Amino acid sequence: MDFAALVRDIPDFPKKGILFRDITTLIKDTKAFPALIDAVAASLRDKQVDLVVGPEARGFVMGSAVAYALGAGFVMARKPGKLPAATRRIEYGLEYGADVMEMHEDAIKPGQRIALVDDLLATGGTAMAVIKLCEEMGGEIVGARFAIELTDLNGRELLKDYDAESVIQY
Amino acid sequence: MDFAALVRDIPDFPKKGILFRDITTLIKDTKAFPALIDAVAASLRDKQVDLVVGPEARGFVMGSAVAYALGAGFVMARKPGKLPAATRRIEYGLEYGADVMEMHEDAIKPGQRIALVDDLLATGGTAMAVIKLCEEMGGEIVGARFAIELTDLNGRELLKDYDAESVIQY
Repeated sequence: MDFAALVRDIPDFPKKGILFRDITTLIKDTKAFPALIDAVAASLRDKQVDLVVGPEARGFVMGSAVAYALGAGFVMARKPGKLPAATRRIEYGLEYGADVMEMHEDAIKPGQRIALVDDLLATGGTAMAVIKLCEEMGGEIVGARFAIELTDLNGRELLKDYDAESVIQY
Repeated sequence: MDFAALVRDIPDFPKKGILFRDITTLIKDTKAFPALIDAVAASLRDKQVDLVVGPEARGFVMGSAVAYALGAGFVMARKPGKLPAATRRIEYGLEYGADVMEMHEDAIKPGQRIALVDDLLATGGTAMAVIKLCEEMGGEIVGARFAIELTDLNGRELLKDYDAESVIQY
């Protein structure tokens, strides 16, 4: 399926000079969304994934569906102050500035096999931050999967120690 | 499956006096999360759902997985300023104050059959706001599904004209 044909280009979002790749047009497509999730889940099927972790907020969309497809649990990595119980936090540099991610400190049991799933691989900053949090809690990262990869931003280099794949590259 | 046993109670979140029902402990469970999604999807299977709509942000977690399980597309209802293309917006009264939801103005094609899926039915304010947006765009609401229902807040009364169901009631 030509997934890229369903991604919409939005100039100057979230700020002037950024060409935003809008995945909502792919995700609302009744044939393409299930096919996208199938493709990502198929690439993880031999990894015995216990948990999928998805970063707020579009990572929840991809991640939870992939978790369900794999028969795994799902864990949110959230912006500060959103999670109700005790959290572990990490600060990191993001494409558009600095940011913080939090996960519940009991989200992962040591030894659980984790797949990180997000809509976008840009600089890889968010992905690496969440991977570090998972590893600090004793999780084993068995894969990182993205719908869209912006190859110019070289996130793949940052993730070079991990099995990272994307469906659509720009 | 005893889903309620996996929900964690958090006193005084997001503010003093609120007992927050934390669904993250259910969703990270490798057996319970797929079973929860199966239960919700089963209740929608005879509705010929084209699209599932989920409100930001925990509605993305439930909603996208249910969409995948049904072979449907998924649409996000988001907080203001988050969606990249032209939006339609609605203001509404929420349990903890006033709020705004936005959807892309081309998110729904007239006549599409829509299921609203969210983690929580409280007052029903968010659900009704999103339902109104969907109906303004010509969507037909064929069901509203929630993991948790806070029955004291009487959201079911607000949704009385719709087929609304929840998995866990408090």
